Amino acid sequence: MLERFKVPEADRVYVREAPMRAATEAIFVALGLPEDDARQSADVLMFNDLRGIETHGVSNMLRSYVAGYRAGTLTPRPEIIVERETPTTALIDGGGGLGLHVAPHAMGIVIAKAREYGMGSAVVHHVGHMGGAGYHAMLALDHDMIGVAMSTSGRAIVVPTWGAEPRLGTNPIAWAVPAGEMAPFVFDIGTSQVAANKMRLAQRVGAKIAPGWIARMDGTPVMEEVDVPDEFYLLPAGGTRELGSHKGYGLGAVVDILGSTLAGIGPGFVANTPGYHLAAYRVDAFIDVAQFKRDMDTFLRGLAETKPAPGHERVVYAGLLEAEEEVRRRADGIPYHTEVIDWFRGIEGELGLDFAFT
Amino acid sequence: MLERFKVPEADRVYVREAPMRAATEAIFVALGLPEDDARQSADVLMFNDLRGIETHGVSNMLRSYVAGYRAGTLTPRPEIIVERETPTTALIDGGGGLGLHVAPHAMGIVIAKAREYGMGSAVVHHVGHMGGAGYHAMLALDHDMIGVAMSTSGRAIVVPTWGAEPRLGTNPIAWAVPAGEMAPFVFDIGTSQVAANKMRLAQRVGAKIAPGWIARMDGTPVMEEVDVPDEFYLLPAGGTRELGSHKGYGLGAVVDILGSTLAGIGPGFVANTPGYHLAAYRVDAFIDVAQFKRDMDTFLRGLAETKPAPGHERVVYAGLLEAEEEVRRRADGIPYHTEVIDWFRGIEGELGLDFAFT
Repeated sequence: MLERFKVPEADRVYVREAPMRAATEAIFVALGLPEDDARQSADVLMFNDLRGIETHGVSNMLRSYVAGYRAGTLTPRPEIIVERETPTTALIDGGGGLGLHVAPHAMGIVIAKAREYGMGSAVVHHVGHMGGAGYHAMLALDHDMIGVAMSTSGRAIVVPTWGAEPRLGTNPIAWAVPAGEMAPFVFDIGTSQVAANKMRLAQRVGAKIAPGWIARMDGTPVMEEVDVPDEFYLLPAGGTRELGSHKGYGLGAVVDILGSTLAGIGPGFVANTPGYHLAAYRVDAFIDVAQFKRDMDTFLRGLAETKPAPGHERVVYAGLLEAEEEVRRRADGIPYHTEVIDWFRGIEGELGLDFAFT
Repeated sequence: MLERFKVPEADRVYVREAPMRAATEAIFVALGLPEDDARQSADVLMFNDLRGIETHGVSNMLRSYVAGYRAGTLTPRPEIIVERETPTTALIDGGGGLGLHVAPHAMGIVIAKAREYGMGSAVVHHVGHMGGAGYHAMLALDHDMIGVAMSTSGRAIVVPTWGAEPRLGTNPIAWAVPAGEMAPFVFDIGTSQVAANKMRLAQRVGAKIAPGWIARMDGTPVMEEVDVPDEFYLLPAGGTRELGSHKGYGLGAVVDILGSTLAGIGPGFVANTPGYHLAAYRVDAFIDVAQFKRDMDTFLRGLAETKPAPGHERVVYAGLLEAEEEVRRRADGIPYHTEVIDWFRGIEGELGLDFAFT
């Protein structure tokens, strides 16, 4: 994550993983989720917080999930139904449950199909927020598989290249690939230039946004450094056509097609609700796992040992900084903004819970 | 394609598709390819020229293929071997043949697997240039399947974000998705900010390159508008970190892993030879084809009818301009640079052929 998004030192409260995990689980249980699903859902949020992906940790997302359960738009005990199936594919009705536990359930089906046939995939509709794609893609790693996860956002806020009306969500996509000694390759991005909830984060930490990140309401890209305006659209990754926004736009459209239209709920801008596409393929369906992991180590080490350009200390690859951050945060605790701790204090009282860190 | 890359009016010679196709086929046959493979190979080049993808038509690529056959680095009659197979996957030795006919052959295997099991994929090594990924992905369309094609480039010329040494090729990737009445969605990009052979094209048409496209030899992004320098590296799509180059870098790494490492030849920067990843999935393995095509029309029409931002006439989607260009070029002929026609005159004499347009 760019420096500008980090919680300023003065506003940080460090909380150990264990009490925050316990608090998050307790909130999910209090909202009516079964123990297992509460544990699974908290695991996704703590995974993101431990790896420094705070846009998808407890700070931004948990309060919106709480609101969803309270408003009845999220079902705490969903009935998950496989509506159509082939040896390798499944169409799944998520029963209106939260993706934090529905997506891992669906990924289990995908992995079982890949184990038997080499590849597997599933689309999921009637489901809530995924909670970040990386976690779900990484579920394939322990099975020596490559994992893919993508989700439409359920809300059109990204303008197409040259467009003045939003047509796509931030439509995230992730690939996770196992390695040997090196931290696994986990490439997890939004297909917009910047994630929607990075805007909320920017407001919280008082950060400006960079040129080429957002568009004015008439579609014109904002090419100056500005505070987060009241109204804006997001630009596709790349920002402007000259800088390759047609690539971000097209990749966002791929996610929209595979996650939403292929799941039978139509384009994202019609569905206005998330749709997922999950996939896994067995490495040994192509080549021996040992050789693959050895070659992945060569690849990832080669990237990480690239001579840096002037002004940079090192070169990294997708997943490396996150793995390093996880080690640090397991040791030192997770830095939260004081405002987030205040929110936990509030919900603790409302739900009659007792958190160790508040 | 950006305006700056188009052949200037004064340098254009219009040639009809049929005689150019015949000439291209004749060249392949003269180089030792069987009739079928020559026809298939010419079809890829003409597809690209008709759709306005001149970077991958006869202008740039054919002369390098001719050089490859003459130098013995390309095999005109390759033995293509399936080395490993599961119900859904195949590892294929391309026999040193050109991808223009080896990739369609492999895609046929992939489509047959998808027809039976829902999904199929193949990796291909020991193979030449793919000739653009879009053509091969589109082979899935007639089967009501979604097609995916990617290739590593066989030469590291793209620096990782913050890096001063090249580690990736331009590593193209394409998705093709069928629609009903609308032109199919065909998203076909290089994962570098700009394609390597667009540089050659820029030199031919005297175009400058834009800020954020290339790096100096120490890895520093060139942020001014300049002529194509003698020495440079390419930047990942996005250009700089602030503009999202980590997304282009990561997507390029995905192609490298799936196309090269998964094909058993190690990372692209070690293999230094192309590797492919091809995939197809049956639409009706997820939902009914009729519904899907109707929804795709809604999606694509919605994109194309987006109100444009100030200064732009319309909004398009991946594959739309190419489909329109194909109609135009089938009617009016294909504009080639005079220098390309000169090259055809030369090879005509060398191989003792007789082209209708020279």
